[in-house]
Amino acid sequence: MSEILSERLNYLFEPRSVAIIGASKSMAKWGYIVPANILAGGYKGKLYPINPKEETILERPVFKSIKDVPDEIDLAVITIPAEHVTPMVRECVEKGVKTCIVISGGFSETGGEGTRLEQEMMDVVKDSPMRLVGPNTMGIYSGSNSLHALMPPVRPVAGKIAFAAQSGNLGTQMLSLGRALGVGFSRFVCIGNEADLKAADYVEYFADDPASEVILLYIEGLRDARRFIDVAAETSPRKPIVVLKAGKTRAGAQAAASHSAALAADETIFDGVIRQTGMIEADTTEEMLDIAKAFAAVPFPKGKRVGVITWGGGWGVVTADALAQHGLELVPFPEETLRELDAVLPPYWSRGNPVDLVGTLDLSKHFKCLEIVASCDCVDSIITLGTMGATSSFQSFAMEGQVMDDAMRDHIKPKVITSDFLKELLKTDEAYRSEVIRLMKETQKPIIAVSFPTSGAVTPMLARQSEVVIYPSPERGAKTLAALYEYEQFLARTRERV
Amino acid sequence: MSEILSERLNYLFEPRSVAIIGASKSMAKWGYIVPANILAGGYKGKLYPINPKEETILERPVFKSIKDVPDEIDLAVITIPAEHVTPMVRECVEKGVKTCIVISGGFSETGGEGTRLEQEMMDVVKDSPMRLVGPNTMGIYSGSNSLHALMPPVRPVAGKIAFAAQSGNLGTQMLSLGRALGVGFSRFVCIGNEADLKAADYVEYFADDPASEVILLYIEGLRDARRFIDVAAETSPRKPIVVLKAGKTRAGAQAAASHSAALAADETIFDGVIRQTGMIEADTTEEMLDIAKAFAAVPFPKGKRVGVITWGGGWGVVTADALAQHGLELVPFPEETLRELDAVLPPYWSRGNPVDLVGTLDLSKHFKCLEIVASCDCVDSIITLGTMGATSSFQSFAMEGQVMDDAMRDHIKPKVITSDFLKELLKTDEAYRSEVIRLMKETQKPIIAVSFPTSGAVTPMLARQSEVVIYPSPERGAKTLAALYEYEQFLARTRERV
Repeated sequence: MSEILSERLNYLFEPRSVAIIGASKSMAKWGYIVPANILAGGYKGKLYPINPKEETILERPVFKSIKDVPDEIDLAVITIPAEHVTPMVRECVEKGVKTCIVISGGFSETGGEGTRLEQEMMDVVKDSPMRLVGPNTMGIYSGSNSLHALMPPVRPVAGKIAFAAQSGNLGTQMLSLGRALGVGFSRFVCIGNEADLKAADYVEYFADDPASEVILLYIEGLRDARRFIDVAAETSPRKPIVVLKAGKTRAGAQAAASHSAALAADETIFDGVIRQTGMIEADTTEEMLDIAKAFAAVPFPKGKRVGVITWGGGWGVVTADALAQHGLELVPFPEETLRELDAVLPPYWSRGNPVDLVGTLDLSKHFKCLEIVASCDCVDSIITLGTMGATSSFQSFAMEGQVMDDAMRDHIKPKVITSDFLKELLKTDEAYRSEVIRLMKETQKPIIAVSFPTSGAVTPMLARQSEVVIYPSPERGAKTLAALYEYEQFLARTRERV
Repeated sequence: MSEILSERLNYLFEPRSVAIIGASKSMAKWGYIVPANILAGGYKGKLYPINPKEETILERPVFKSIKDVPDEIDLAVITIPAEHVTPMVRECVEKGVKTCIVISGGFSETGGEGTRLEQEMMDVVKDSPMRLVGPNTMGIYSGSNSLHALMPPVRPVAGKIAFAAQSGNLGTQMLSLGRALGVGFSRFVCIGNEADLKAADYVEYFADDPASEVILLYIEGLRDARRFIDVAAETSPRKPIVVLKAGKTRAGAQAAASHSAALAADETIFDGVIRQTGMIEADTTEEMLDIAKAFAAVPFPKGKRVGVITWGGGWGVVTADALAQHGLELVPFPEETLRELDAVLPPYWSRGNPVDLVGTLDLSKHFKCLEIVASCDCVDSIITLGTMGATSSFQSFAMEGQVMDDAMRDHIKPKVITSDFLKELLKTDEAYRSEVIRLMKETQKPIIAVSFPTSGAVTPMLARQSEVVIYPSPERGAKTLAALYEYEQFLARTRERV
């Protein structure tokens, strides 16, 4: 990418100083909430509130104009109403501010006067070196320096996913969901109206960003289709791009037109873009995070042969269907592997793939079966169902146990589930997690875990999905594995072409 | 259905007395766990432990043989090893026991000797009036009398879904998930090897069961395809049947063959069964509960016209796509409705469907928009995104608020989110829930809520999905609405034929 753009976006995501134009004492104003978020998020750089009428805000001295700040400003965040923005942007340019985020709405997304205001603002920006995010954006997040320049009080987990979203509410909800699930982000930007910086610019920056291992996009329509395609095609062989394209149907495109005002391409066109660029498409909002978290955590499968280990027969059948539907293969095991499994499992086990653990409560056997299957040259990837995250199930069982204890107080004395038993299970769960990580390192094969969420409680393990991934259903695990394999096939085709 | 079968299955699901053959003092044996589950679950009928060697079990007097019990037995539960079952089944028949559940595995699902044992057992049962569940089953649940004759310590919520599953682990996990989500069941049976009672028998019973409003099935293969099709076709016009058919792919069918040993029909055949019978197919395990809970809670849409209200533009676009993909229609509103909405929303609102609430924090406006859209003759159903279950988001925000408070202690004094603010939000959430219920009653249109699970915590509201339904993504809400409409279309075709 151009060195100038790269340098500018470094100022954006790793600013040494941030100014808030429109800083406020009122807790109901974005001029209070955004800097409060920045401070609460633990940002260590300098923060300068700008407001012509106040003395101190958030216990910091206030400057009447950005021009009065006796320091270089890497990032200015503007929260004042649209009609007052241009003069402030002009001051930023005159001050030599490196980058600027215009949070305010009321620009081209509302048409008419808003479009004129955006044009006026861009007339100031376009000949300056300052680059602008938005307008009409919920802001940015950056993990490396814990910068939360965001409207909603979201605290993302720092991680390896770089995310550009053409919707603030969808984007920040994904960050929240990621926090609940322990899925981390390196960068986030709500791209807003893209008056200056566009989707392609962020992708180009993320491609070279050492903090980011996978790029996630929510796109309604492209304002710079030609350049976006070039950048995506150049980036995909180096770093996976996962994309949800909304507005693919006529109804969706209409809704997008009134939301982001970006030109939504019809389904056929975007399918062509996907093929051309090697991006990985997510079909649903849930899949965005399902797939992105796997790209950031596990090796890619080198082929389509899958080994499945299941704690229950029915889930094995469902998984077999899901794998077949996505073009993956449940391979037969060689006799040698079957014999190794014979030594672990009871004589009536099904001697096949999926390996049905036939309900055994002896978790040490789960470990052995996983190692046998993962080590077999016959498979390229592994799905383990029910064992990992059993904590979640057993937490729920323990709660049930409590219910049971209460109900049975009049009937029997012994407790069905003791807290010692539960502690033991938690330990086993952690050990299984470590074993999965060890085997992935040794074999360089992805191991996908499926845990059945019997309670809403997030287990301690679920809250750390940076080295292992856990899915709430076999279908979602299988679909993710297919996405990883799709990318591996794309890489193979790319290598052939070279 | 035959009155005899109906009477027998009443004994099964509403027994006045239960005997446990193989009752045990050992907490590691099913002969202890199953009766412990029954007692803990609050069953009010009589419970008789049977064991030739013990005096008391679970503080109840033990009988050496079922023949010694001085009472009629409606249900006997057998947990002893397969090779000892037949003599006990014979005693049951001689005693005049009405129904019997054989929990024990090691029968036809293992082939060879197991198949012989099952045949031997059925030779005793087939000429008697006693009906048998299993063998190789995790048991049954019944909500009306709180009977938990189950192996896992699951405590389902009592509700309106009758569920027959050809997999114990999948079935009981669904009950657990239902508990976590507040989705209730009237009956559950793990159908096991179907040596006597088969899938069709349970469907026929559920069809006439006043406690059950929707029938949910997990099927790997049919052992009585002809009769099943007849029963399903006769039942569907009276009560919706939601089915997940596993083993539809070759790989899945192979896995099913070694799991349930039922003959899995190939995809084409089962698709024909679906069309012929009017059953509603769930494509994934998550969809089973998504769809079943809606059938048990909301009215069916009379047409395909949908009104969408969203708290954020991006979710609206995603919803528009999902509706179009499932053949539902995002209708334009008449000018009159637009004018009513104009009176509530700011001047720059998009004046269309979806109604974008443009981020307004004044929740009273959400109420008004919902009423305007639901009352409009132009729509047959409504999806409301983000408002209901905001509790969940705000619980998360509140937690974030705490994090924020902690982090900001050195910076600022005022708390960004106070507990009063949170209490107010919780009240609003409850009020919105009541409003949705009121509007569904008045308009007889389904209102589907989508709440974005930003934290793993189950909100109090999420835990009561018997009158309203809440989905974690727009796509899952839209898919469910399509399933409801599919059933309504089937009913319309059926009415035309009459």
